[in-house]
Amino acid sequence: MTGRGPRGERGEQAEKIIAAARRSFATCGYASTSLRSVAQDAGVDPGLVHYYFRTKTGLLEAVMQPPEAFGAAVAAAAEQPLHERGRAFVQANLRLWEDAASAEILRSIILTAAQEPAALQRLRQLFSELVLAVVSHSLPDAERTLRASLIATQIVGLVMNRYIWQVGDIAALPADAVTDLLAPTVQRYLVDPLP
Amino acid sequence: MTGRGPRGERGEQAEKIIAAARRSFATCGYASTSLRSVAQDAGVDPGLVHYYFRTKTGLLEAVMQPPEAFGAAVAAAAEQPLHERGRAFVQANLRLWEDAASAEILRSIILTAAQEPAALQRLRQLFSELVLAVVSHSLPDAERTLRASLIATQIVGLVMNRYIWQVGDIAALPADAVTDLLAPTVQRYLVDPLP
Repeated sequence: MTGRGPRGERGEQAEKIIAAARRSFATCGYASTSLRSVAQDAGVDPGLVHYYFRTKTGLLEAVMQPPEAFGAAVAAAAEQPLHERGRAFVQANLRLWEDAASAEILRSIILTAAQEPAALQRLRQLFSELVLAVVSHSLPDAERTLRASLIATQIVGLVMNRYIWQVGDIAALPADAVTDLLAPTVQRYLVDPLP
Repeated sequence: MTGRGPRGERGEQAEKIIAAARRSFATCGYASTSLRSVAQDAGVDPGLVHYYFRTKTGLLEAVMQPPEAFGAAVAAAAEQPLHERGRAFVQANLRLWEDAASAEILRSIILTAAQEPAALQRLRQLFSELVLAVVSHSLPDAERTLRASLIATQIVGLVMNRYIWQVGDIAALPADAVTDLLAPTVQRYLVDPLP
């Protein structure tokens, strides 16, 4: 899709390296991964990994980059009419996680953040910018940052149970049923009076 | 507390080894941890680690053991009158996570499960037995396993945002305020008609 010129080729090689780093961080851990081992897994020269990413921190930064669709999907849901927005947030997250390619990236971000303080710091920053800020900016009232945080508790818990741990009934239900079950909670956090 | 006889001493040594394994799994990753490195970190002879835990899998099993208070707290909450049970579940979890010692164990279980499939399998089993089964058995109706799973989504999401990622308003509020905010959701999952 990207053509065969130097630019397209560079994109492909970099993607290969990122995919190898993602696998290695998730299965061997961040500490056990080296630029050299990533190069070997990706089938490229170690110099190329150094050239594109400089350091292991550079590679981590690339691995922690969420799929482009993620920010866009949350932002689109935040623009829905307020009375439908709870459902829109649940659906947007389910769509991203039901898609194998974006789910793999999101999963590796969560798993890598569990091991490496720098990755956790990056997850915190991305989550604040792409989720909490976007959700709260869409709301009119003074409690909007608290509302965004409450919504995050429900949606992150859904993701952990259904996709990361794969435990309980919520992991086995069709996505539409999950939406029907959780959208009312998210909607309450958006608009109901808080205690 | 355990005396100085051989039995107390064995317990202390084993606890030291488990604590070292927990730190190593969480910071260096399961794959990079060896019985030898754990022995070194614990300041004991490698033969002792082998003697108590046999293999790295044996050590993993010990690390994945939740605090005794965990199962007891969930079970006690499940025995509260139904109309107060939502609040009881939230409070029980907050109490465990606000306690530094039990929080450290629970955190290491979650972090280790993020890296190692055997640990994830163990977490899934413990979570099913100690949380989902206990919550659902306390309920009278046919939807009880679904209700338990819904409650788990809310509580796990709370734990991830507040204690593991430490992100958003929910991470900064006093525990009592968190209880007031989340107990109504858990209560609805316990008793309200489901879609």
